[in-house]
Amino acid sequence: MTGSTTKTSSGRFFEDFALGETIVHATPRTVTSGDVALYTALYGPRFAVQSSQAFARAIGYPEAPVDDLLVFHLVFGKTVPDVSLNAVANLGYADGRFLKPVFVGDTLSTTSEVIGLKQASSGEAGIVYVRSTGRNQHHEIVLSYVRWVLVRKRLPGTPPHAELVPELPAAVAPERLGEGCPPLDPAAYDEALAGSRFRWADYHPGEKIDHVDGMTVEEAEHQLATRLYQNTARVHFDGLAARETRFGKRLIYGGHVISLARALSFNGLGNAFHLAALNGGRHVAPLFAGDTVHAWSEVLDTAPLPGRGDVGALRLRLVAAKNRTASEHPYKDGERYAEGVILDLDYWALLPR
Amino acid sequence: MTGSTTKTSSGRFFEDFALGETIVHATPRTVTSGDVALYTALYGPRFAVQSSQAFARAIGYPEAPVDDLLVFHLVFGKTVPDVSLNAVANLGYADGRFLKPVFVGDTLSTTSEVIGLKQASSGEAGIVYVRSTGRNQHHEIVLSYVRWVLVRKRLPGTPPHAELVPELPAAVAPERLGEGCPPLDPAAYDEALAGSRFRWADYHPGEKIDHVDGMTVEEAEHQLATRLYQNTARVHFDGLAARETRFGKRLIYGGHVISLARALSFNGLGNAFHLAALNGGRHVAPLFAGDTVHAWSEVLDTAPLPGRGDVGALRLRLVAAKNRTASEHPYKDGERYAEGVILDLDYWALLPR
Amino acid sequence: MTGSTTKTSSGRFFEDFALGETIVHATPRTVTSGDVALYTALYGPRFAVQSSQAFARAIGYPEAPVDDLLVFHLVFGKTVPDVSLNAVANLGYADGRFLKPVFVGDTLSTTSEVIGLKQASSGEAGIVYVRSTGRNQHHEIVLSYVRWVLVRKRLPGTPPHAELVPELPAAVAPERLGEGCPPLDPAAYDEALAGSRFRWADYHPGEKIDHVDGMTVEEAEHQLATRLYQNTARVHFDGLAARETRFGKRLIYGGHVISLARALSFNGLGNAFHLAALNGGRHVAPLFAGDTVHAWSEVLDTAPLPGRGDVGALRLRLVAAKNRTASEHPYKDGERYAEGVILDLDYWALLPR
Repeated sequence: MTGSTTKTSSGRFFEDFALGETIVHATPRTVTSGDVALYTALYGPRFAVQSSQAFARAIGYPEAPVDDLLVFHLVFGKTVPDVSLNAVANLGYADGRFLKPVFVGDTLSTTSEVIGLKQASSGEAGIVYVRSTGRNQHHEIVLSYVRWVLVRKRLPGTPPHAELVPELPAAVAPERLGEGCPPLDPAAYDEALAGSRFRWADYHPGEKIDHVDGMTVEEAEHQLATRLYQNTARVHFDGLAARETRFGKRLIYGGHVISLARALSFNGLGNAFHLAALNGGRHVAPLFAGDTVHAWSEVLDTAPLPGRGDVGALRLRLVAAKNRTASEHPYKDGERYAEGVILDLDYWALLPR
Repeated sequence: MTGSTTKTSSGRFFEDFALGETIVHATPRTVTSGDVALYTALYGPRFAVQSSQAFARAIGYPEAPVDDLLVFHLVFGKTVPDVSLNAVANLGYADGRFLKPVFVGDTLSTTSEVIGLKQASSGEAGIVYVRSTGRNQHHEIVLSYVRWVLVRKRLPGTPPHAELVPELPAAVAPERLGEGCPPLDPAAYDEALAGSRFRWADYHPGEKIDHVDGMTVEEAEHQLATRLYQNTARVHFDGLAARETRFGKRLIYGGHVISLARALSFNGLGNAFHLAALNGGRHVAPLFAGDTVHAWSEVLDTAPLPGRGDVGALRLRLVAAKNRTASEHPYKDGERYAEGVILDLDYWALLPR
Repeated sequence: MTGSTTKTSSGRFFEDFALGETIVHATPRTVTSGDVALYTALYGPRFAVQSSQAFARAIGYPEAPVDDLLVFHLVFGKTVPDVSLNAVANLGYADGRFLKPVFVGDTLSTTSEVIGLKQASSGEAGIVYVRSTGRNQHHEIVLSYVRWVLVRKRLPGTPPHAELVPELPAAVAPERLGEGCPPLDPAAYDEALAGSRFRWADYHPGEKIDHVDGMTVEEAEHQLATRLYQNTARVHFDGLAARETRFGKRLIYGGHVISLARALSFNGLGNAFHLAALNGGRHVAPLFAGDTVHAWSEVLDTAPLPGRGDVGALRLRLVAAKNRTASEHPYKDGERYAEGVILDLDYWALLPR
């Protein structure tokens, strides 16, 4: 046999998704202390629970957990070759829950169930809703979330086998939070070492916090990150192909922005050590190398966790903007996002009480 | 005593090599999970065997082996200060065999035997042939390969002590393959997790595979990689000195290109998890930061391994090109390499049967 | 409650420091093999003791120690949010001693005692002297050093509560060296593997060594490094804010220069494996991305260690310069530092006897 073969994957198109099917994604991944160090080098997080074995053990963890967003990126990265290689846009996230802490040495793998399909009005693409589930080597679910993506059709006009738009909660209910966090001893939580004296009860709905610091992003950084997550989306790596796109350059993985903004949020939310749930998220505008990211947060809600006196939950809106500071809390001008806003993330964080 | 000393090494010149001598190279190196994570971040490989402890153990490895090319770079890097600091060009590789899997925690060291010397016609340089041998902390050989390099003379015109051009095989014979791979259980090899349903028998000589994806390389990336390998070749790091060279800029380590092309080859060769042997390799043209690498492969041969029903070997030509896609399988135009081709690598990979 | 809060830290101003107070710095940090790998990738050090478990154990270490400068950066990084966020300049270091080897798995934390305060003549800032102490998880001191920094006042003109300029030694006395190095077997120290045949007795006061090699620094590299150390100084990361500064661009963390110069010094000082003490240091001029660093050393003194025949100490001046080679040993032209000099570091290194 001579000539080209079809052994390479060109990704799924809208017609290739069937309602109810489960996709087993490739490349299980053992998380190592090398991944953790790179995560620190890429974003500079300073939460003591993830940074120090001694601190984590003192409050009740068996050992220091891996940063929740590193888990998210590793679980997410595996879905890209099957779900979003032909995506026009990543439209949203919902009902994301971190259900077990992940430790160095755990091996993560991901499956996705197709829970919704909807043809776009143009007829050239459609929206695919998947529930992606990350599991550890004991087959325990560590993360579950819904994502929906606008995916090109192979043949414009083809209808899907079935259409269904799933009902999704606007936010994860407080009583569904906390499984990813073991029982802790808040008295053993050392505020000086943690870097903040503000605990759960010190935050109030409506409070806005400018995280002050800014980070300029380099091509090498986001490429290292996105490869670390084994995320294969071409738009992040191929500068040659990028010249032909409307941006003319490589796009930075949206998850890179989430991690940058979350690391910046330490200044003001230093005790918000655990990301318990992702209520929703929108990548409002693209980020490019050379841009500088600032971030601010608004406390949307606070909730105790049923039966737990150790930790409480804050519902937070985390907004990232590029090439402007966050001192004026840029968000929306009427219906539209304000100039420079790139991320609008809604999540629940846990803090010691 | 005052003034400069000669405590620094300026590397060996052609006259400094003696036929038959063995050079013990400096800086033994313990391989860590940090090295593995950086390797993933630098190239984005997705072979399940190296990525997952669980996957590797399921098929018969005691634990996940370190990527063969990371081993190659670590073993190779040590030879640079002694062999190629004054090299004009790295001319070729032959008879490279991976003989033992390397695991996290192993300590690698390298020796090189001078097996050939040949004065260049110009009289200003000569070709040095070395067989370099990488060993682990148990003194077991993990990698052995021949490399030849054009090395400047200290004094143009000096003849070498002796001249000998070693006979080298065009390719490693199939019966000499496989020592680096333990007996595996091909039934336990999960194709969904591996990301490819194509096993050894699905590939045929003459088959060409465009690996589709492209990677643009940044200065920070290749510098991080090359320092990780403790490779000290100045051309990769010193932008000031590079201004005086014919390129006017830093050159990217040729091994970086090999690793990029191999990682790209996952798309089409997702089960070719083990690099068993390097038959030969040529760095056809230099790569610079800002360039984009694409790659394609041709199946040159297929071979069962004597006495083994678990894995089979594919002899592959891996071609990398810069700033052009590989959809047309760029290779040679007559005698000359086609525009943009930068790497012509001939190797044996093992796949599950 | 609505609106901005003061939950973010804007750092301490000169008035906020009290003589004699001890500041507990945030974010304890467990050192991992990932940190070590990144350190190797960022600077390319080749000292065998830190690189190889087998080498370290052969000479008497329980396992390979972490590079002393990585320890320094981790201990130092924690002090930034409390000590130098509002610093105008980092003025100097003195009396730095490495007192215990640090191993992978150790958790480091830092406290600083304010040992001196002096109002600057301008009245707009003052000099703060702190003794910073890094401890491991057993509360053993691993590193202790004095640093002084020019810190802005919140209100120009405010006098400090008390003024005191501490007396500091010009150099750590030889009899105070060596606690950070266990008893070693110099006969087991393999010079071929170490990469240098020059031991302690081969060096002489007045000797100058050009380390030959150069390294060009990229933005991504110093940002990865500085975040790895959880050093939050804004000037290193925020390119947007940097436009408003007198340099117009991001500044590279001074410690990055120290590590680069020290890694370059391997070529000439390959057996100077342990940094026993920092006598003093001055960041003479800033380094920016795109600049190339060269380095040279002068042997200032040599000293045996009382009661120890295994190792001896060299007092070294390590000078780094940018965008010029070090072949002419650039240092001072009269009173002023020569063009291009960026670092003047005075330290004690230990070498096998």
